[in-house]
Amino acid sequence: MAAGWQQLAVAPLFFLLLLLLLSGSCHATKPNMLNVHLVPHTHDDVGWLKTVDQYFYGDRNDIQHAGVQYILDSVVDQLLKNPDRRFIYVETAFFYRWWKRQSSGEQQTVKQLVNEGRLEFVNGGWCMSDEATTHYSAVVDQMTMGLRFLNETFGPCGRPRVAWHIDPFGHAREHASMFAQMGYDGFFFGRLDYQDRTRRMLAQEQELLWRANIDPLTFALDKNKKNPPGILPNGYNPPEGFCWDQSCDDPPIRDDPDLEDYNVDDVVMRFLAIATAYKTNHIIMTMGSDFQYENANLWYKNLDKLIRYVNARQGNGSRVNVVYSTPSCYLQELHRANLTWALKTDDFFPYADSAHDFWTGYFTSRPALKRYERVSNSHLQTCNQLEVLGGPVSRNGPFGEGNSQTMKKAMAVAQHHDAVSGTEKQHVANDYARRLADGWRHCQVLVSNSLAALTGSSAKRIYCDNLNISVCPLTESSKKFSVSVYNPLARPVTWPVRLPVNGTAYTVSDAKGQPVDCQVSNRGFAINELVFQVQAPPLGFSTYSVSLLQDGPPPAAATKHQVMCTGQSISLTQNFYWYNASDGNNSESDQPSGAYIFRPNSSTPFVISQRNSVVQEVRQWFAPWVSQVVRLYSDSRALELEWTVGPLPIDDSLGKEVITRLDTSIKTCEMFYTDSNGREVLQRKKDFRPTWNLKQSEPIAGNYYPINSRAFIKDDKDQLTVVTDRSQGGGSIHNGSLEIMLHRRLLYDDVRGVAEPLNETSAIFPEGLVVRGRLLLSLERPPAAADAHRPLAQEAVLQPLLTFVDGGLSPDTRLEVSGRGFSGLQAALPPAVHLLTLTQWDGDSVLLRLEHQFQSRESRVNSQPVTVNLQKLFSTLEVIGVSEMNLSANQWKDEMIRFAWTPQTGMHARTHKHTHTHTPVYLTGLLRLNCLVCTDQ
Amino acid sequence: MAAGWQQLAVAPLFFLLLLLLLSGSCHATKPNMLNVHLVPHTHDDVGWLKTVDQYFYGDRNDIQHAGVQYILDSVVDQLLKNPDRRFIYVETAFFYRWWKRQSSGEQQTVKQLVNEGRLEFVNGGWCMSDEATTHYSAVVDQMTMGLRFLNETFGPCGRPRVAWHIDPFGHAREHASMFAQMGYDGFFFGRLDYQDRTRRMLAQEQELLWRANIDPLTFALDKNKKNPPGILPNGYNPPEGFCWDQSCDDPPIRDDPDLEDYNVDDVVMRFLAIATAYKTNHIIMTMGSDFQYENANLWYKNLDKLIRYVNARQGNGSRVNVVYSTPSCYLQELHRANLTWALKTDDFFPYADSAHDFWTGYFTSRPALKRYERVSNSHLQTCNQLEVLGGPVSRNGPFGEGNSQTMKKAMAVAQHHDAVSGTEKQHVANDYARRLADGWRHCQVLVSNSLAALTGSSAKRIYCDNLNISVCPLTESSKKFSVSVYNPLARPVTWPVRLPVNGTAYTVSDAKGQPVDCQVSNRGFAINELVFQVQAPPLGFSTYSVSLLQDGPPPAAATKHQVMCTGQSISLTQNFYWYNASDGNNSESDQPSGAYIFRPNSSTPFVISQRNSVVQEVRQWFAPWVSQVVRLYSDSRALELEWTVGPLPIDDSLGKEVITRLDTSIKTCEMFYTDSNGREVLQRKKDFRPTWNLKQSEPIAGNYYPINSRAFIKDDKDQLTVVTDRSQGGGSIHNGSLEIMLHRRLLYDDVRGVAEPLNETSAIFPEGLVVRGRLLLSLERPPAAADAHRPLAQEAVLQPLLTFVDGGLSPDTRLEVSGRGFSGLQAALPPAVHLLTLTQWDGDSVLLRLEHQFQSRESRVNSQPVTVNLQKLFSTLEVIGVSEMNLSANQWKDEMIRFAWTPQTGMHARTHKHTHTHTPVYLTGLLRLNCLVCTDQ
Repeated sequence: MAAGWQQLAVAPLFFLLLLLLLSGSCHATKPNMLNVHLVPHTHDDVGWLKTVDQYFYGDRNDIQHAGVQYILDSVVDQLLKNPDRRFIYVETAFFYRWWKRQSSGEQQTVKQLVNEGRLEFVNGGWCMSDEATTHYSAVVDQMTMGLRFLNETFGPCGRPRVAWHIDPFGHAREHASMFAQMGYDGFFFGRLDYQDRTRRMLAQEQELLWRANIDPLTFALDKNKKNPPGILPNGYNPPEGFCWDQSCDDPPIRDDPDLEDYNVDDVVMRFLAIATAYKTNHIIMTMGSDFQYENANLWYKNLDKLIRYVNARQGNGSRVNVVYSTPSCYLQELHRANLTWALKTDDFFPYADSAHDFWTGYFTSRPALKRYERVSNSHLQTCNQLEVLGGPVSRNGPFGEGNSQTMKKAMAVAQHHDAVSGTEKQHVANDYARRLADGWRHCQVLVSNSLAALTGSSAKRIYCDNLNISVCPLTESSKKFSVSVYNPLARPVTWPVRLPVNGTAYTVSDAKGQPVDCQVSNRGFAINELVFQVQAPPLGFSTYSVSLLQDGPPPAAATKHQVMCTGQSISLTQNFYWYNASDGNNSESDQPSGAYIFRPNSSTPFVISQRNSVVQEVRQWFAPWVSQVVRLYSDSRALELEWTVGPLPIDDSLGKEVITRLDTSIKTCEMFYTDSNGREVLQRKKDFRPTWNLKQSEPIAGNYYPINSRAFIKDDKDQLTVVTDRSQGGGSIHNGSLEIMLHRRLLYDDVRGVAEPLNETSAIFPEGLVVRGRLLLSLERPPAAADAHRPLAQEAVLQPLLTFVDGGLSPDTRLEVSGRGFSGLQAALPPAVHLLTLTQWDGDSVLLRLEHQFQSRESRVNSQPVTVNLQKLFSTLEVIGVSEMNLSANQWKDEMIRFAWTPQTGMHARTHKHTHTHTPVYLTGLLRLNCLVCTDQ
Repeated sequence: MAAGWQQLAVAPLFFLLLLLLLSGSCHATKPNMLNVHLVPHTHDDVGWLKTVDQYFYGDRNDIQHAGVQYILDSVVDQLLKNPDRRFIYVETAFFYRWWKRQSSGEQQTVKQLVNEGRLEFVNGGWCMSDEATTHYSAVVDQMTMGLRFLNETFGPCGRPRVAWHIDPFGHAREHASMFAQMGYDGFFFGRLDYQDRTRRMLAQEQELLWRANIDPLTFALDKNKKNPPGILPNGYNPPEGFCWDQSCDDPPIRDDPDLEDYNVDDVVMRFLAIATAYKTNHIIMTMGSDFQYENANLWYKNLDKLIRYVNARQGNGSRVNVVYSTPSCYLQELHRANLTWALKTDDFFPYADSAHDFWTGYFTSRPALKRYERVSNSHLQTCNQLEVLGGPVSRNGPFGEGNSQTMKKAMAVAQHHDAVSGTEKQHVANDYARRLADGWRHCQVLVSNSLAALTGSSAKRIYCDNLNISVCPLTESSKKFSVSVYNPLARPVTWPVRLPVNGTAYTVSDAKGQPVDCQVSNRGFAINELVFQVQAPPLGFSTYSVSLLQDGPPPAAATKHQVMCTGQSISLTQNFYWYNASDGNNSESDQPSGAYIFRPNSSTPFVISQRNSVVQEVRQWFAPWVSQVVRLYSDSRALELEWTVGPLPIDDSLGKEVITRLDTSIKTCEMFYTDSNGREVLQRKKDFRPTWNLKQSEPIAGNYYPINSRAFIKDDKDQLTVVTDRSQGGGSIHNGSLEIMLHRRLLYDDVRGVAEPLNETSAIFPEGLVVRGRLLLSLERPPAAADAHRPLAQEAVLQPLLTFVDGGLSPDTRLEVSGRGFSGLQAALPPAVHLLTLTQWDGDSVLLRLEHQFQSRESRVNSQPVTVNLQKLFSTLEVIGVSEMNLSANQWKDEMIRFAWTPQTGMHARTHKHTHTHTPVYLTGLLRLNCLVCTDQ
């Protein structure tokens, strides 16, 4: 094990370009020929038209024919038949399920195939995550889970060398950054704007270096741009006429001269015609597609013949050489070519596959699922932390057996590019939500056990999971209860707690019995709401007692939460609008708006209410289906807009895409800013793309970008930052304006496969889904804006967990009697440092990730290197060993070796070669710990 | 090798019930439980929606997903994974193609599987022949070819024990008879009238003994009647909910408790619910269907689980035991049960699957293909015979390399139940025809070589294959040519030759120069017709010279072919009609008439011309699209009606099914007679079925039966026999009337899968196919009728082959100078004996089949045993060894051992147990020959 480290500098810059490590399992290529790399692969969605389990088993084949268990059975059988054959596998969520059903003999066979490079894992995360709507913390988690399984099962030969995102609908720079820090040598992807694709093909920039954050260079391949312009792309499919899966209809190679229709000559000629050279004398062909290789014999039997017959032409002077290959073998040949490559520093959003087909709808599709996924991530981090802090009793304690594993898996599948993206069928969306709920049930037991150990009180804890709709049976009925607030952040938080109650007057006190200000207000529905501020220490909790004073008439409208939009020099106007979703019937294109695609019928949205409300009122009703509560908490610098939208009316037969628009006097010059997967912020410009001359064909949809956690507009003086509580789409269509799409209800399918209109109803919402969410508005001026929105966004992502105990507060709250509550940390971390991960790794060790959460140059104070003393990190745990790892924790940091690449000269970015070495933005370590307080367990 | 025999008694009776030979490879069953035999199988049509080669390779999967090469690959792989698994394979046409592409190692593996009974061949013919429209001689040939391959490849373990006709559309008694004589123990089939099915289910007569001709008993299973009445049948499919092929959507067994939707309990309960007992405590379930098992893993993985989980319930008291099985293992258990079985003596025609859905249309569908298949059979028999008679030089002689194998294979696939049946797609029908044409091209070289050897003349022979449409470039242009007539029958024939010519006067002389009467008549089209009678000896040929005398004006209407319908005491009226094919739109049912189904819209046909022509005219025009030539040749006792029908007009949007109806004064009492596969004749009665109380729902279609070679009506005094030149459908709807359907042109598909209306057009016939054919009418009275129609039908089946040589007759026609021409036989065989097969078997031996062609009791003279002296059979070949074999020549006759079965007592038939032994109706032998005249080769 590598030597431990204990003091680390964490800086916002990182850079990784190391030496080449050759794979010995690649087939030899021929230097004087065009080498065609055939890459047999299957693309197995971790849920889409069917649930992940239905896909695994091959259930509900009436919806879509797909059964992953059979794919893996079949591929292994076929690889064994010919040692030349290769296969890559991507989604560990499926592989893991299959693996555990194999006998040890079968497992040994597969290990042999992996060791020999015949079966190669690429990407290797639990799923192939969405890039627009996922938060980076959940992506890191799901990648870690998948890669860990591969690492523990197959060792170094099972470590993927390339990232493989052939299907997500546009590509985020943050993903490229994460992949680089996970040690990948290259990043293959498929979907980019059709105009960009055309330009790159002409410029031979189908391969490029992607500078994935402020400094690092990451090698990226857009493997799709091998098609001449105007020809429809293959996607990640095989060339036209060469699809031999059972799901394809292309003619097989008929090489029995005794039978009719001998076609070997024809096949060879067609193949030679498409095998034309690009930048190197190597090209890659993806031989596979969605859920293919269920009967791998069809593919391999014909590929064997293709290779044999095409290469036989070399005897007649052909200069084409075909080999079975993998992405890493192909990448190795590109590296050997020792060329320079085009440089890319922005990202690949938004994605359009033709002029009126912008995939910007899914930034907002299924807003309720998107929020539930975000909340679940927060719950999971809390669960992970409390598993560490509470020790083994967390998993098996007074409340039974609990675990974090179920929730980890549920969150991992929810990152899939048809999960949190909202582009799955309704029944599949329900399945993801159900899995998250099930995972949370297992975590609740763990959390109860852990809190019992930490507090010494085994009083039953109650979780009010429906506070978002103001439902909590305990608080609505109990005359006396306590509420504990656990804070998963590494710094103290103050948080407004709002509880549904039936009484009209309560007293609230903290653990020391000190009274806390509180207020009961009429929620507008049947019940009242009790509101008070709580505080909780880093990685710790505090407890408050609540007692009913009296029953009585509902209180008058709240007066304490005064709206404050003064002290700012900008004029801010907000309203709600809806775009009429295109039904596909117009002269320009027949593309309707749908789960993936956003395409308004007109660029002018319908205003929902003429009342432009300069933010002054506490409660606002814009329409029967749009309302808002505006709050400014006393010690917060952010304004909270709690919007409630739905059920969207469709009796006018118009699909609706509801936005809220904030119009300001900020001089934006068509610029605005959105984040990438919740981390770095990218500059956007209206009707502009940094790397090509955009011909804008959709003035609204073509200017929408994913807003994962925040967006802002600014000028020299002022800035309006909006922090969201889930992934949404948005843009700045007018100067000074920022609009965010909140909810969508559509009447047509957008013909991208899902075959259902995005029209969410349920038993609870038969008239259409009602969604509630929050926008946090900060008016902090540009120089300090990041200092405000970084912690604000983290608070929105990792929100405190409330647990309730009925009755009086336990007298023995051992760790809270000090008055500061319990904190797992000796002290709060510096503001620049975010504790990204603290989770049990195995019996002996925990995984810790610290992160420098400020981008380079965005804060005078915080965009600086920081030092953290790990020895003094935890309050109840002693660090007795540390081993640094790559971001995905599947490789020791000092063994991380990556290809070095050279960008083209003359590029605007500084070129980085083998000279730079930076400390990483993430610090990932396996820690061995000793529990200082749990000797009694 | 068994001792040769040389003198044989051939009798019309046969009977075979011998001892049980146990298969050791069947899984043990449990005597006190219900044993469920799961039979994994695939049903691979030898052409239907795709051609046979397309099916083999998996080409044109856009039409239907099916690739037999992959099925066999996959099944073998999966059988190797678990020794308990079983599979049956049926169609040798496919298996043979696959086998020859396997390495010797792979072949060894498959042999091992066959030897262990894990892969079992059933049926084993080249295809699964149609039963209504095939001639028995072609069926015997195709079965022989398939079984020979299995025998030579796998030995006794490859010999199928059961016949398996799960798909043909009704079942012929002659097939049961042939199968018995081929040594099968049982006959599994699927399609019988839905009323019959219901009755048998209630009476527990799903298994029955089928007395397949006048005496033999054959064991037959209708495996489909396991469904309660009113439930749609599975056909040969698995029970509902248990189809696990890639083409099915049933839920797989989901037995991982960690995943959602664990369904083992549900599957087991559903299975136990359908596993209810029948006559024995054994039931069979066909686990497979059309082209299934392309990915056998899906099936076997789930079947393994089904067996494991269902049998595990035995520990909890379940009385159901599930095993992998095969039809022969199931049959063995039935035999062990030692029960008595219901007896059946008629056949299973017509087949209806519901009240208005009679599958009687295909009796006539594609009349041109049906005729071409029949002519091709005649050509093939000639080719086979001349290969034997001409010796090795036939295959490689002055005209190059020829063979009979291509034609044998083409004829074999044409017997498939979607080939000659006319129920395939148009492009597939074209493929069958093309294969026959290609086979005939190879045979032509062989015939030319053989005739060159036999005549000593290597003059180039010309084949006029288009004489059916009066086209022959040679005869139309040459001033002097000779025509040779080869007669494949074992008795001399006289035959009218009609040749298209442009001249108006010719002389014709035989080989000795004797003049032959001839006549030139106006054919009604652009050319004239030269007509003369030729004679040819048994298995021999004669040659005639033709010389143009003069060119001149077309002759007057022929006078020589006087119509003679006198001398008979019956009144015969003929006319042509058409039924308006149902378009599916009526109150009773929405079933349209189509390739399979015959369903007239009304029972009253439209008369094509009001002129009821008492047969008096030589040429008759009934409509622009129906005409007829009537001929009575001078020395013939049969009247020839040459009909020409088409193009059927459809501009009235009415589908048409054209019949000719012969109305007589014969008192038929609703009885009539049709043959079974061209051999035995069965009695039919209007609106009646021998074994159940028919509820007639289709007065026309429900009274149609296949007419393969002949039909007749009779009373005590008179009989009208019609001999056809192809398979047709027909019936006797009115007393004294016999109608035969000649041509069909339909506008709708009949929803049985073919998905094309039967509407034949082509480049030659863009307005619709024109079909020409012949009916031979005999008025021979009942006692002697068979003596007339037996040879007449054989002449129609095995017609002489004409070959032409341009220029003068070769002076040295060595074998013909004797004046009697060449005959391969020393003497004609007795009238009762038909030489069914004479074909080269291998370098050393030939296969000979003789047949007693008279049915029991149908002729005073000929329905008697006959003796043939094989030693004195051939004129140019010496028989030096004979080994008797079963009908399909895959087993020595004395090793033929079959199960014995006991019919129920009280049945109307005489019961036959182990006591009877008759000589067979067929005599099949392998002969070693010595050529007496070909020493010079």
